[in-house]
Amino acid sequence: MALSKSPYKGTRDFFPEQMRLRNYIFSKMAEVSELYAYEPYDGPMVEELDLYRAKSGEELINEQVYKFIDRGDREVAIRPEMTPTVARMVAQIHREVAKPLRWFSIPNLMRYEKPQKARLREFWQYNADIFGAPEGLGDIEIIQLAIGIMQAFGANNNHFEILINSRKFVDYVFTGPIHLEAEMTKKLYKLIDKKNKMPADKFSAEVAQITNDPKKSQIFEKYVALSTMKEIESFFEETFDGLEKDKIFNETLKPLMTIFAQLKNLGLGDYIKFDPSIVRGLDYYTDMVFEIFDKHPENRRAIAGGGAYANLLSIFGEQPLPGIGFGLGEVPLTEFLKTHNLLPDTSIQNIDILIAYTDLKSEKTVFELSQVLRNSKIKVEVFMGESKPKKVFSYTDKKQPRFVLILSADDIASGEVQVKNLQDKNIHKMSLSDIDKLIDLIKGSR
Amino acid sequence: MALSKSPYKGTRDFFPEQMRLRNYIFSKMAEVSELYAYEPYDGPMVEELDLYRAKSGEELINEQVYKFIDRGDREVAIRPEMTPTVARMVAQIHREVAKPLRWFSIPNLMRYEKPQKARLREFWQYNADIFGAPEGLGDIEIIQLAIGIMQAFGANNNHFEILINSRKFVDYVFTGPIHLEAEMTKKLYKLIDKKNKMPADKFSAEVAQITNDPKKSQIFEKYVALSTMKEIESFFEETFDGLEKDKIFNETLKPLMTIFAQLKNLGLGDYIKFDPSIVRGLDYYTDMVFEIFDKHPENRRAIAGGGAYANLLSIFGEQPLPGIGFGLGEVPLTEFLKTHNLLPDTSIQNIDILIAYTDLKSEKTVFELSQVLRNSKIKVEVFMGESKPKKVFSYTDKKQPRFVLILSADDIASGEVQVKNLQDKNIHKMSLSDIDKLIDLIKGSR
Repeated sequence: MALSKSPYKGTRDFFPEQMRLRNYIFSKMAEVSELYAYEPYDGPMVEELDLYRAKSGEELINEQVYKFIDRGDREVAIRPEMTPTVARMVAQIHREVAKPLRWFSIPNLMRYEKPQKARLREFWQYNADIFGAPEGLGDIEIIQLAIGIMQAFGANNNHFEILINSRKFVDYVFTGPIHLEAEMTKKLYKLIDKKNKMPADKFSAEVAQITNDPKKSQIFEKYVALSTMKEIESFFEETFDGLEKDKIFNETLKPLMTIFAQLKNLGLGDYIKFDPSIVRGLDYYTDMVFEIFDKHPENRRAIAGGGAYANLLSIFGEQPLPGIGFGLGEVPLTEFLKTHNLLPDTSIQNIDILIAYTDLKSEKTVFELSQVLRNSKIKVEVFMGESKPKKVFSYTDKKQPRFVLILSADDIASGEVQVKNLQDKNIHKMSLSDIDKLIDLIKGSR
Repeated sequence: MALSKSPYKGTRDFFPEQMRLRNYIFSKMAEVSELYAYEPYDGPMVEELDLYRAKSGEELINEQVYKFIDRGDREVAIRPEMTPTVARMVAQIHREVAKPLRWFSIPNLMRYEKPQKARLREFWQYNADIFGAPEGLGDIEIIQLAIGIMQAFGANNNHFEILINSRKFVDYVFTGPIHLEAEMTKKLYKLIDKKNKMPADKFSAEVAQITNDPKKSQIFEKYVALSTMKEIESFFEETFDGLEKDKIFNETLKPLMTIFAQLKNLGLGDYIKFDPSIVRGLDYYTDMVFEIFDKHPENRRAIAGGGAYANLLSIFGEQPLPGIGFGLGEVPLTEFLKTHNLLPDTSIQNIDILIAYTDLKSEKTVFELSQVLRNSKIKVEVFMGESKPKKVFSYTDKKQPRFVLILSADDIASGEVQVKNLQDKNIHKMSLSDIDKLIDLIKGSR
């Protein structure tokens, strides 16, 4: 029986058109990262499973990680996310290097997922992190960078918004006024994630069931309904009191308000919004958290998410080093760009000139000429085998090189050739001995 | 107990210095590929194991492949090589697209290996293939491309050579004059690979044991001692006779001699050498085979290998489509470049300007100015937090940006700033309102 030609479930083949698109996306990400002085890094595609046990939480390990036992009886996992790897790497060197560290990577990751729109089992994810930045300033830069990347794709505040929250504030609300057992608190966190996907009365019913206390339910529902800085301030005033009030304010709302003010100063106020429902699950985040959200009504989803974390290095027995980072998946990003008609056309290969020949005698010259042009960084496709012009032009119709040159033994004898510009249809007469003129013609047309 | 900070056995962490080197290597590979009109592609990092069962041979499957059972009871493998994937992809589309197909990729691959010099468990490998080229011409282009890539790293025929053989010729020698059972033939193939690593008498003893026939041994030893086209021709004359002689010559030595002649025409004669010991194991190769070899006496090893194959698509129930390709691993390539002192220095990050501030009042201006410069593609590092110039300069000593600007409230009040070029130590006075002048200064110094 013939073998299947399909890729493994939930993974993709990148044919040249898709690969050029991926390269376009990755090169924009890298370019903007370097404008912000972020340095590239990468880790292995597999890690020992313990790394994720320590960092990523039960759900990821039990349900999403591709894991296996290797020949040395080690439990190994294909990386499902990059943060544990970057933490491991930073733990190795953070004591010897100048800080802050600004790092980015674009690894391929794998997770068991039911393949669906914008969800695949193998995907690439841009990751950027700043470690050891002075308090508050890393947050600003990371959000600037996130916006900068989105803008590099032609997106603006009509297309996306950044929803921001303070994880610390959520934690105070949940451990203070809504004091519940850990298990119940987890349930509330999960419920927040689902809020926009369920009817209001069903949401309220579930809240009531979890808290089992009308007063607590009221505070929780009030919390998740907040939508402006003003509202959050009055909620704070109503909800917290006593000696801790100033401390809590200084740790949560004050830094958040500073971040908002500074981003407004930078002209980015129209991109950012406070959103109490952004909590980033049960992850390692300890302070500001945010998500980039598509504003299109038919594609309301998170494209990226991230936040600040204080304790990533502790599992390696290292001193704390605060960090802030985010991940941006190429799958939801591509979906976003498609939705807003921001994808470039990558169907056509970039070829400067196609060189063909009508007779075997000219073959040697074609190969030689091509090599000379390539030495001058001209992209040359040799049309192999002696061919009639008609066949060559039927091929250039498909491949669309910028120029075409069809060589014959007569041309070589006369030393004169005709180079056709396939965009403006002009024909340029050239001497075969004046290659520089040909090079100038081609480079001038780029 | 604290978690290990080391990467999984046989894999590497790419810190920024190593990652910049990897990016340099990959971008050269991609750049030269595009000069030859090769298009980028990629496949998934995992494939169903059956794909390798059909293509890669027992040894790879049993000893080298990372394999596991997924949650859907599929046997899955992390890709140990790229050729089966590219064959699977080409099988999907070859009937609908213009040929030849010229494709390249740089995937990460995994194999169980005892980690040693130039051998790791995870590595990246450049792959290029041409499918459906007219006979003989694909071979020329693939070898041109291989040489072109090596030259892009500054290497020439003092540093490496390309050892070429005809797999078909080897097969005729082995099945004709040295006629042995399949099992014994396999052993001879393996022995050839080890020839240069064992004493001559031990080699002869093993040959005698395998063939169990002095005449056959003599032919075999004569064959592996061949080193020029002239020698191979007289060996052919002595060894083959009868009706088949012309047929065999036309299928094996004639095309090989044509390839050599054409590469000589292109000025590449000094790079290529006939080598009877290049047989490329028990792989899918059916015609020309070659390896790029380091010429340095202390690093005699293959950096790359490839050849022509006729039947890659048959396992998918597709018509044959001839192809020629090669793989070039970044690990042996890096070892080669290091050996010949051809590695660039990637220890320093490329930063155009570092902008610092001495007082909190200037922070806002620094963030704003940085954003304006980045919009003009200037790579800006913000030195976060109010800092004394001494601290800033101690940092720039390490990071080596090209320019530094330290802003104070006084500067902002006067509108005049001083930008220092850290290479020539010149100080440029600028008006804060004339950002274009600053942009020109920085871009002009690149």
